[in-house]
Amino acid sequence: MLNQNHIRVVDTDVHHNIRDKTDLYPFLTRHFRERLDEYGMPRSTDLFSSNGGYRGARADCFEGEEDVDPRSRFELFDKKLLVDCAVDIAILQGEYTAPLLSLVDVEYSAALCRAFNDWTIAHWLDRDSRYRLALTVPIQDSALAVQEINRLGNHPAVVAVYLICGNTRLYGNRYFDPVYAACADHGLPIALHFSNEGVGMNPAPTASGYPSYYGEMYLLRPQFYQSHLSSFIFEGTFEKFSELKIVFLESGFGWVPSFRWRANTAWKALRAQTPWVKKLPSDYIDQHIRFSTQPFEEPDPPTAMSDLLLWMNGAQTLMFSSDFPHWDFDPPEVIATRVPPEIRANILAKNALSTYPKLA
Amino acid sequence: MLNQNHIRVVDTDVHHNIRDKTDLYPFLTRHFRERLDEYGMPRSTDLFSSNGGYRGARADCFEGEEDVDPRSRFELFDKKLLVDCAVDIAILQGEYTAPLLSLVDVEYSAALCRAFNDWTIAHWLDRDSRYRLALTVPIQDSALAVQEINRLGNHPAVVAVYLICGNTRLYGNRYFDPVYAACADHGLPIALHFSNEGVGMNPAPTASGYPSYYGEMYLLRPQFYQSHLSSFIFEGTFEKFSELKIVFLESGFGWVPSFRWRANTAWKALRAQTPWVKKLPSDYIDQHIRFSTQPFEEPDPPTAMSDLLLWMNGAQTLMFSSDFPHWDFDPPEVIATRVPPEIRANILAKNALSTYPKLA
Repeated sequence: MLNQNHIRVVDTDVHHNIRDKTDLYPFLTRHFRERLDEYGMPRSTDLFSSNGGYRGARADCFEGEEDVDPRSRFELFDKKLLVDCAVDIAILQGEYTAPLLSLVDVEYSAALCRAFNDWTIAHWLDRDSRYRLALTVPIQDSALAVQEINRLGNHPAVVAVYLICGNTRLYGNRYFDPVYAACADHGLPIALHFSNEGVGMNPAPTASGYPSYYGEMYLLRPQFYQSHLSSFIFEGTFEKFSELKIVFLESGFGWVPSFRWRANTAWKALRAQTPWVKKLPSDYIDQHIRFSTQPFEEPDPPTAMSDLLLWMNGAQTLMFSSDFPHWDFDPPEVIATRVPPEIRANILAKNALSTYPKLA
Repeated sequence: MLNQNHIRVVDTDVHHNIRDKTDLYPFLTRHFRERLDEYGMPRSTDLFSSNGGYRGARADCFEGEEDVDPRSRFELFDKKLLVDCAVDIAILQGEYTAPLLSLVDVEYSAALCRAFNDWTIAHWLDRDSRYRLALTVPIQDSALAVQEINRLGNHPAVVAVYLICGNTRLYGNRYFDPVYAACADHGLPIALHFSNEGVGMNPAPTASGYPSYYGEMYLLRPQFYQSHLSSFIFEGTFEKFSELKIVFLESGFGWVPSFRWRANTAWKALRAQTPWVKKLPSDYIDQHIRFSTQPFEEPDPPTAMSDLLLWMNGAQTLMFSSDFPHWDFDPPEVIATRVPPEIRANILAKNALSTYPKLA
């Protein structure tokens, strides 16, 4: 589809949004349209959402339109992301669709997921070929999630399935196997993003309850991914789905080397208990897990960065993300200034092109 | 009390136990003795306890006494730990007292904690001066925990207060401040050990529920400590208790460098929200947190060990532990073979002598 040589920057984590609920009306049946009209968009009760910067976003993105969610401003994305940052491909993960994935009313959740995906196709993907979409699916019910993947998985600009870390189950649980089978059918990786930990029906964010402050949630985010990664490994998910790739968005990556080592140690000592786990955990990670760069780690000393990248096999496992338009956004320049030259092209584009089959 | 120059090895994590419930009868009032007789020792419903090795312990520790819990064999400890490993001081954390700290009946819990502590003093501390005790306290009720600290905190061989990671609250929560004040009064650090995550009234082990296998719990343990560490930092615990030290037992330490970096990044970006946190998180960690060595990390490449130790300030923050008699026990030799010579004495003894004031 694309001449890959022209693609220099793939941004794997960009967050768009509707301007208000009426944007979704054309994509809903009358029943659910009336429901949305009366009820409003489901909101997360998570006190920690969007708690940095200005309303969670870059303050400069509000200039001239102070009362508009910058995540809904198509022209702003064009200027500040695609043009200013020379992004060739931007993969969209919906902002504020996370609460839909913890809504106990699964039919309502599924209707809103469908509407959000259809609205994105009409108003973003069809309007600018540089955008791609990670589908929001009602993961509370794996059958409904599969339906949505089958409905839109063949759309050429749909390149992934978007899940959030907060869930009642860990994602290696066999309950989700039909979802991974559907992903395999359509050549879609899972794009996993933190959100909704401790919200609604989900367990508390930590094994000892709720942190008090946003700074703690920010600090502890890697845990949410580590738990799912451990689950994928020890449940044998990658033995069942040999092509499945999981993209960890905004997970950090400083923790990856020590996690690989500890996972290998645990497997070597205890693998008699899980004989279906055939390979070293670090081998599964190399083959199936991809990490994203934002927010870029700040090791001390800074020279530790090259060690971290080596120990996590970053040349193969790390991909650029900006997190536009969030307050802790990183421009692509961060890669040029903090990553060894020989792996920059991999991180900026090549790893993404080989991770998302439909980009190639 | 002791000539410190003679102390070459302090083992900060050793697990002893009663042989059976009747050991506690002399230390209980009639009411609680009858209760224990009828009910039996509270057991953890945690499926993951003691799931490695042979019944969780070194197989060789069952030789000749196959039906006896090796954790209860005083002579075995003498031979295999104190003599064979040349341990000068061993700090005892009770085996199977963890369930007492998640028992909703707090008066019963407090009675059993008292009895276990009194039994340990009579049958271990009074019998061999090389043993020290981290007091088990009923942390579910901070007032009862304070009572137990005040009752025994001045005993010369009581050197710490033993807590477990599984709790309904994170330990930076102000609910626990009276406990830390009592620790300050008696010169006792907190000895924090994993256990009881997801058990009884405690939240699930992860933000997405329960792992299926022991290997996962083993792999994910560092999370339980990270959550409490984040809480201590952002709640300002160390501003309130300037002398408080927290010892992380069996927490791993490979994760510490990247956690320090991420914590500093989070604080720099978001500290306007928690102005009572005055210092860089890594400064609090250097001053207040101590890590233990077992199970020793196995980085790849092995040369990464010296980097990890440097980045976590291991010369000051790391202390030897064997975890005797558990299946994944480490002898003191691990320090001689895997740690740079210039910091071995610190890790084997000196850091412990400056962390536990009553050892000095």
